[in-house]
Amino acid sequence: MENDVLVQELSSKSTNKAVKVAVAQGDGIGPEIMSAALNILKSAGANIEPEFIELGEQVYLLGNTSGINNESWDIINRNKLILKAPITTPQGKGYKSLNVTLRKSLGLYANVRPVSAFHPFVKTNFPNMDVVIIRENEEDLYAGIEHQQTQDVVQCLKLITRPGCERIIRYAFEYAKAYGRKKVTCMVKDNIMKRTDGLFHEVFNDISLEYPNIKSDSQIIDIGSAKLAANPENYDVIVTSNLYGDIISDIAAEIAGSVGMAGSANIGANVAMFEAIHGSAPDIAGKNIANPSGLINAAVLMLAHLGQLEIADKIKNALLATIEDGYHTPDIYQEGTSKKKVSTQEFAKEVISRL
Amino acid sequence: MENDVLVQELSSKSTNKAVKVAVAQGDGIGPEIMSAALNILKSAGANIEPEFIELGEQVYLLGNTSGINNESWDIINRNKLILKAPITTPQGKGYKSLNVTLRKSLGLYANVRPVSAFHPFVKTNFPNMDVVIIRENEEDLYAGIEHQQTQDVVQCLKLITRPGCERIIRYAFEYAKAYGRKKVTCMVKDNIMKRTDGLFHEVFNDISLEYPNIKSDSQIIDIGSAKLAANPENYDVIVTSNLYGDIISDIAAEIAGSVGMAGSANIGANVAMFEAIHGSAPDIAGKNIANPSGLINAAVLMLAHLGQLEIADKIKNALLATIEDGYHTPDIYQEGTSKKKVSTQEFAKEVISRL
Ligand SMILES: CC(C)[C@H](C(=O)O)[C@@H](O)C(=O)O
Ligand SMILES: CC(C)[C@H](C(=O)O)[C@@H](O)C(=O)O
Repeated sequence: MENDVLVQELSSKSTNKAVKVAVAQGDGIGPEIMSAALNILKSAGANIEPEFIELGEQVYLLGNTSGINNESWDIINRNKLILKAPITTPQGKGYKSLNVTLRKSLGLYANVRPVSAFHPFVKTNFPNMDVVIIRENEEDLYAGIEHQQTQDVVQCLKLITRPGCERIIRYAFEYAKAYGRKKVTCMVKDNIMKRTDGLFHEVFNDISLEYPNIKSDSQIIDIGSAKLAANPENYDVIVTSNLYGDIISDIAAEIAGSVGMAGSANIGANVAMFEAIHGSAPDIAGKNIANPSGLINAAVLMLAHLGQLEIADKIKNALLATIEDGYHTPDIYQEGTSKKKVSTQEFAKEVISRL
Repeated sequence: MENDVLVQELSSKSTNKAVKVAVAQGDGIGPEIMSAALNILKSAGANIEPEFIELGEQVYLLGNTSGINNESWDIINRNKLILKAPITTPQGKGYKSLNVTLRKSLGLYANVRPVSAFHPFVKTNFPNMDVVIIRENEEDLYAGIEHQQTQDVVQCLKLITRPGCERIIRYAFEYAKAYGRKKVTCMVKDNIMKRTDGLFHEVFNDISLEYPNIKSDSQIIDIGSAKLAANPENYDVIVTSNLYGDIISDIAAEIAGSVGMAGSANIGANVAMFEAIHGSAPDIAGKNIANPSGLINAAVLMLAHLGQLEIADKIKNALLATIEDGYHTPDIYQEGTSKKKVSTQEFAKEVISRL
């Protein structure tokens, strides 16, 4: 049986011509961490050419409830590649989440979130954790179908489709195969949602049979996330639906050290988007203290996706070395372990000096 | 303003006449841990009289897809009080979850799950954690409204009502007030589900104003559960909707030591049901190795609810002393810290000897 999942990722090669990337600088801490990430990409010799796009708060506040304008869509559709900082969606029922719009409009069905510890340099109880969460990225309660029946009764539709389940579950097994991972764990709540989560579980069971060399098991999401929180080192690849994946990827990243460290890849058949998993943290915006590691890790995933593997490794190693040498932004700074408390920009400089 | 929430709980008094309790022995490890709990209740002089009811696997397998028969309903409706061991719902779309049926039919809107550590006797990274999760218990995706549109498209309805939100949120603040707790944290995902989770959050904001002496804050469920998993000691009372509460209460209990230790109260206007938060663990059923602590803690909550406070304390202290003295069932046994690995029955005997 032929699989075209991951094929784009695995077959793309680095070419001499610079790859154009739509770059969204985002809101809150977005511009600071993006500037750090771009400086590092440039210094490392990444063969990419940023094309900046406008989206997020500034666009919302012009009265555009989608948070993105046509020009940005054009650039995205041309480049088919996005590096994105976190954005802020204004409060209020009228504003649609641009994160969700991008994922759904561009068919970015797989949200890949690798999380590992930086022990002993970043504090964690789980020095050996190394888990990849593969989160379905288009369906579930994120379909955005909400309905107000009366003033007092509201509803939201959880929508699950067989092709959606098949695609993400196959992606998870292909990912495990490509990256030499040993086990894929399915987490849903099919003892209650027998049809929706039941479908996900049923498709998981079917597809797992096609991968006899990869172990597979299933856990109900309640006890599964509890065991993940208590013993994350027991997990390898986890595949789950959209909302559960949202929750457990934040848990995994935070107990590995900080939600500020994890990057993610949003993968579709034709387009890919890379971003940190954390939010725009408006409370610390403009202070030059945010940790850019999440976005740097997202950029590393992007380079790997483009086949620029050497440069990806170079950046990844320089980032690790910076953290190991104890140059820490305030969120991961620890008296005793850390050497110096650095700003966002200083952190980036330290990474660059280690490339 | 008058509140009748908690009134039943706080005003009920121990009387001389034994209180009749519908007791469901459950499936899997259910009968073993229930026998342990009942022996302890009896030895402690709890003023209750068990009336056994049939429900769960044996009833399902007779072809009754609800898992409960009329006789059991009669006893429940008469006694208005249930002590319940975990049950097993058979696989298959036709079987309805009896846990959900009981909660919904009996109007048990508040699921109260206190979780604290038994440091240093049970291993935990969080010696000071002491959190109460107050979980809405009737609405949300648990409404059980699922629909198969085509072979490939299935839907589940997340249903949230204003009265439902008001009741559980007021319960949480009244609980905090009654038990001298300092803070109530709301966790939902209203940046995505603006109407449903938005309603919950809006009602939380409104009701919090009525309790100026109790701190209140809100976190998005993704980062909220991550911070709970990483720093549970920062939380006091958490109020949340049904599915999120299911997930985070298992997380809290597991990182406090073991999901096997936590009891819960399902509170309605007229009926209350007490149970462990863990499942029926068929894999270890009949082996006399299950930890009965979750159900014992549920029984303690029941006695407190009945106003039998002295006996509740007596059992609680004996349970603590047993654990402190190192008599541990295999799930919490640790070479070095534990004194003796004991069976379910032996554990109960040790508790009884410390009453
Ligand atoms: C910002 C929000 C819409 C987003 C999500 O819920 O998916 C974020 O939490 C994430 O995990 O990427
Ligand atoms: C058994 C199951 C229906 C139940 C739930 O999901 O509520 C359990 O996990 C719980 O938390 O009490």
